[in-house]
Amino acid sequence: MRVLTSILKVASLSLCLTIGQVSAQTLPLPEPLINLNSEQGARLLLESEANRAYWPLSIQFVTQKNQAYCGVASLTMVLNALGVPAPSTPEFEPFKTFTQDNLLNGETEKVLPKEVLAKIGMTLDQIGGLLTTFGVKADIHHAADTSLDEFRKLATEALSDPPPWSGPVRMLME
Amino acid sequence: MRVLTSILKVASLSLCLTIGQVSAQTLPLPEPLINLNSEQGARLLLESEANRAYWPLSIQFVTQKNQAYCGVASLTMVLNALGVPAPSTPEFEPFKTFTQDNLLNGETEKVLPKEVLAKIGMTLDQIGGLLTTFGVKADIHHAADTSLDEFRKLATEALSDPPPWSGPVRMLME
Repeated sequence: MRVLTSILKVASLSLCLTIGQVSAQTLPLPEPLINLNSEQGARLLLESEANRAYWPLSIQFVTQKNQAYCGVASLTMVLNALGVPAPSTPEFEPFKTFTQDNLLNGETEKVLPKEVLAKIGMTLDQIGGLLTTFGVKADIHHAADTSLDEFRKLATEALSDPPPWSGPVRMLME
Repeated sequence: MRVLTSILKVASLSLCLTIGQVSAQTLPLPEPLINLNSEQGARLLLESEANRAYWPLSIQFVTQKNQAYCGVASLTMVLNALGVPAPSTPEFEPFKTFTQDNLLNGETEKVLPKEVLAKIGMTLDQIGGLLTTFGVKADIHHAADTSLDEFRKLATEALSDPPPWSGPVRMLME
């Protein structure tokens, strides 16, 4: 595994991507959350001063391939957004990209066995641990350990940095 | 197959989603195309008066699962963005959503056999044909049959409509 010489930084606020926010076929979005796919949601993003991290992540968006893979899907997006050297994968030869299948390897197995992952998903700390195996330094922040103001400050800082990122990946979870 | 009572409209300009525009591990973006993941690209989208169709599609973004599935990936996004009743799929039970696997069925097989699709992908006209099997009316426009001005006018009209869409899906391809 090639270790990145520069330590990179990106924010991933929505780690658990539910597919349930779109139509009656899936879960409704709980109040008072605002759907990005709404006048108000789009305006909030467009007018935000902390929307720089949105673009590199949005073009790498993946839906989690099963209900335990919110962490795997988030890692796939983050590693692709950072441009971390990706393994090859038969379906995209000769190109290389992280997928929810090729991301898991012998090193990640030591941090979190695939069998456990498939049953119960992964925690934020395990996501940080997996990132380390790809040579990416992650700063882990749990919302419960901070005040609302502090969490918002951390999120704003992480999301307003333009690429190319420098410094550690900042992982936050509410 | 339940047929939609209201005919829906959305635009999908970038039907062939290449995964090659992000890093040196994939294809570089050809000149003079502008990466959405750049200062200029993000500004163009944010300042556009025709960005309404971006939001419902963006939250349904999928990367094509293999190099022949640009059409299948585009259809998955469009059908989910339109809220067309989706089939169930084991990995997301009890929720329902279109995926690049469950989208292909007996009806689509009549329009385009899976075996042919896997080898050579699909044309814009075949995409329109597949949409019809889901009860969605599609207007097909080939750039080669229109002038640049006419194509831009069609694209602007299709992309600036807010949801909920009324009228046919408008499919355009350059």
